[in-house]
Amino acid sequence: MSELGELARRRGFFFQANEAYGGVAGFYTYGPAGAALKRNVEEAWRDRFVTREGNMEIDAPTVTPEPVFVASGHLDGFDDMLVECAECGESHRADHVVEDNTDIEDAETYSTEKVEDIIAEHDLACPSCGAPLAGQPVEEFNLMFETEIGPGSGQPGYLRPETAQGMFTEFPRLKEYARNQLPFGVAQIGTGYRNEISPRNALLRTREFTMAELEYFVDPEDDAPDLEAVADVELPLYSAEAQNAEGEEYVYLTPQEALDEGVVNGEWVAYFLARSKQWFERVGVDAERFRFRQHLSGELAHYAADCWDAEGEVGGDWEELAGIASRTDYDLSKHAEHADGNFSVFKQYDEPKTVERATVDPDMSYLGPEFGGDAAAVADALQALAERDRAAFDDEEVTVEVDGEAYTVPVEQTGFSVEEQTESGRHIVPYVVEPAFGVGRAVYTALAHSLETDEVDGEQRQVLQLPPAVAPTTVGVFPLMDKDGMGETARDLASDLREAGLDVTYDDSGNIGRRYRRQDEVGTPYCVTVDYESLEDGTVTLRDRDSTEQARIAIEDVPSVVAALVDGDRGFEEL
Amino acid sequence: MSELGELARRRGFFFQANEAYGGVAGFYTYGPAGAALKRNVEEAWRDRFVTREGNMEIDAPTVTPEPVFVASGHLDGFDDMLVECAECGESHRADHVVEDNTDIEDAETYSTEKVEDIIAEHDLACPSCGAPLAGQPVEEFNLMFETEIGPGSGQPGYLRPETAQGMFTEFPRLKEYARNQLPFGVAQIGTGYRNEISPRNALLRTREFTMAELEYFVDPEDDAPDLEAVADVELPLYSAEAQNAEGEEYVYLTPQEALDEGVVNGEWVAYFLARSKQWFERVGVDAERFRFRQHLSGELAHYAADCWDAEGEVGGDWEELAGIASRTDYDLSKHAEHADGNFSVFKQYDEPKTVERATVDPDMSYLGPEFGGDAAAVADALQALAERDRAAFDDEEVTVEVDGEAYTVPVEQTGFSVEEQTESGRHIVPYVVEPAFGVGRAVYTALAHSLETDEVDGEQRQVLQLPPAVAPTTVGVFPLMDKDGMGETARDLASDLREAGLDVTYDDSGNIGRRYRRQDEVGTPYCVTVDYESLEDGTVTLRDRDSTEQARIAIEDVPSVVAALVDGDRGFEEL
Repeated sequence: MSELGELARRRGFFFQANEAYGGVAGFYTYGPAGAALKRNVEEAWRDRFVTREGNMEIDAPTVTPEPVFVASGHLDGFDDMLVECAECGESHRADHVVEDNTDIEDAETYSTEKVEDIIAEHDLACPSCGAPLAGQPVEEFNLMFETEIGPGSGQPGYLRPETAQGMFTEFPRLKEYARNQLPFGVAQIGTGYRNEISPRNALLRTREFTMAELEYFVDPEDDAPDLEAVADVELPLYSAEAQNAEGEEYVYLTPQEALDEGVVNGEWVAYFLARSKQWFERVGVDAERFRFRQHLSGELAHYAADCWDAEGEVGGDWEELAGIASRTDYDLSKHAEHADGNFSVFKQYDEPKTVERATVDPDMSYLGPEFGGDAAAVADALQALAERDRAAFDDEEVTVEVDGEAYTVPVEQTGFSVEEQTESGRHIVPYVVEPAFGVGRAVYTALAHSLETDEVDGEQRQVLQLPPAVAPTTVGVFPLMDKDGMGETARDLASDLREAGLDVTYDDSGNIGRRYRRQDEVGTPYCVTVDYESLEDGTVTLRDRDSTEQARIAIEDVPSVVAALVDGDRGFEEL
Repeated sequence: MSELGELARRRGFFFQANEAYGGVAGFYTYGPAGAALKRNVEEAWRDRFVTREGNMEIDAPTVTPEPVFVASGHLDGFDDMLVECAECGESHRADHVVEDNTDIEDAETYSTEKVEDIIAEHDLACPSCGAPLAGQPVEEFNLMFETEIGPGSGQPGYLRPETAQGMFTEFPRLKEYARNQLPFGVAQIGTGYRNEISPRNALLRTREFTMAELEYFVDPEDDAPDLEAVADVELPLYSAEAQNAEGEEYVYLTPQEALDEGVVNGEWVAYFLARSKQWFERVGVDAERFRFRQHLSGELAHYAADCWDAEGEVGGDWEELAGIASRTDYDLSKHAEHADGNFSVFKQYDEPKTVERATVDPDMSYLGPEFGGDAAAVADALQALAERDRAAFDDEEVTVEVDGEAYTVPVEQTGFSVEEQTESGRHIVPYVVEPAFGVGRAVYTALAHSLETDEVDGEQRQVLQLPPAVAPTTVGVFPLMDKDGMGETARDLASDLREAGLDVTYDDSGNIGRRYRRQDEVGTPYCVTVDYESLEDGTVTLRDRDSTEQARIAIEDVPSVVAALVDGDRGFEEL
């Protein structure tokens, strides 16, 4: 991808950060064009996954105290396999060393011992210096960046590896904003950090990145998505089963077909797969180089019951762009165990239910003298027994165990009774379906899929065929020369176009051909040139990036015509 | 500010992050309303300081390698004064302990020794436990969060304390995007981190925050801002001189008056003070509780030659909201010293200049045998001397010093000559003027200045009088009840309003009065109710938040009327 890398640097899309200081692998800066493209991609995500779905969006801090990651399991389980070269001291991802040099494709799912064995068996060498790695230990390396909060006796903090925990730890409050009604979704677009052992492939695997994540909380028994709305979407699905069966590829199924055939398990997952595919197309990812690949069982993150990665083909490899995961009640249950707060939702029954409930009310004036310091524990054990097995109270005596010792109590001293209670509902822990996107990965893939080289007027041309909705600039405005009033007219037009909400670049330097090339290289879909004819008859030249065709239109029509072209309400050939 | 804090939690503006885990001081999460307000404030900043000024915006990583902060001076100089209580172990900002308990207002500008002395003299106590702090050491504490990048032999990295360094380290590339033409500006809206000793006042002093910073690069000799465009802005200026003179307050001056009277030194600073004031008003900061305070000399950051803080009055205190700093060529010069890359801009002369240049071309066949290994160093010293003092070559011999030793060379062996050269320009290191804003501080102050309590229909009402342009929701749409078609009509209207680009909240629960209150509390400027009359005659009730007045308008006019109200093109009383 050096062609894209070169264009990205030259035209200000992205480049390695702090290159003047040698840079550090895995950190990139978006230049002016890239930052604008990235913002537009984020805005498109917000429109699709927040606004149109009626979800909420929050903004939580990235530095997070340790107890959160103890509960979430990241402190223990968020690891990659590390092997260090004894010769040159370079660190490598052990599973990648295996995958890059053997036929094995899923070394990530193996144990460290197994990877050690494979390295020895195949006599694999250090990718940096070529020294043998056999015999070097393969270790789990935690990917979270650690820091310390506060001076002196500070406390450990970690840079969040995903935005998701922000939605989970604040759930007790967020459900109030949702008025305790499931389903509801909470989204976040923000920075995540992973101390990757070997960052690679430019924006595809970085140590600091922007994520867009939606945590969608559902009642697993009741809620169902509007599958009608996505009935026509063809999902390219590469199931775990197909991956395990040699020679199979991905197949196209609609969400309903995928559910009916048991390829996708879960309506919400199917729904968000469809919404994700639509979104990727909208921001410029080529549908022909796109698929969903199900995680193999050993590959699943510690919190996921099922996960489908959205993958884009870039430079001949399938690269992970997003994941649609079923996290079940894992996260909320873990936080309920570790934190203060109510991580469940009260689910009202349609009609109040009458239930029988067995309770005890032990006579402590009997239990006290009889069992001394163990009396309270015996009383608790009696209540637990009543709830579990009320038949045990049918006899004259009942026996409970406390710390391995048996205590027998006459039933008449237990105050046992069965009462009818009316319940209006019950507390349930919602399930979570999570579409999680890497914004930089989407940006990079959209760029890679948009970059074309063709020939215009006998010269090679690089052109970024980005969708108008995400292009950094929607329209370039040029005066043929900045004289005889052409500059003023062009500046007025640029200002009118900005008023109409379009992103405009004004450029009056160099010949028109060079200005067109510049805009082609940043993906500007339309350019307008004000020339001498404009001063006479009030028309301008409107040029289409992809076809390089030109049309002559009235200057006052430019804002509405460009808006219609961007929205797809008109085609350029109709002008 | 507990009234605001309570409203902020209840209505989803902001709250302490991870409260279910006890929280950590200085970290806040923006809820749905707060995240929307914050985005709107950022968008208003982008519009004012990027788009309208024709500047560029970039997006650089937050984790930054150590050499950058060695060069910038932050590793050495970015400190606060720390004192730890011997009794309870709590850490405090020593200067705040002094300022909060004595008449001293600028302890920040004192040395650590002086602050130690004052603590002892006044017998100041630990704010947490009351134990005496006298005798405890006051130390400089570096405010940067540290982490380690990469596994094994990783390298130190720091979470950036300001976004600014991203613009400085990438300057060699950014100037190319600006086609090497001064002046130009590069902005960034992103996260910054400061490991504050004592975070306080909710969003006003946090450990993680969003900044919006513009680095404006100018030719100190040539460039001048368009002061005409801000000629009418009245700047409330509290100069260092006025602060030092007991009893003086801030005075209102236009930018030109401030320059003429020598209150503000520098046209660019004056220009950005004016733009900043306009912007703060636009996002809801009360102009009557706003001023610019010049830094006292001891208070200036290590990189600043002059700085004016924008301050808002909140809860009786003046709080820092932004800083307009003159950083001169400090940053670019430092990076030029420490990094590879060209941190200057080539400034073309209007006309090429002919200059005389003295050079040497030493006879190495003489210098070599004569000076051995020192010959090359002697040749370099001769060239340096020729540039510095060509008269030295008037004699027969010339003497230079290398490593403290004198070397004498006959002038005829030096190849000394003076040549005429034509220069088309020269390299200059631009000066930097930096308007730097704390986004959370602006959000908090806008909320504090917007919160009013009045009485409506005999009931107390809390209302956030936020400007429509930044309010989380622009218009609330309610059906009187969700039946007889009122729900459908209201939903269609909500959808039309969204199409028109407005932020809409649809609400059909509770009585209309309660729904109005909810929207009042999140600052929604307009609400529309669809009732039975709507079904008959196609009109709806439009309600104004601040006056609570209502008007009856045709349903098809709602989008254009609300848009006109938001833009200020119409007043509610005209309806």
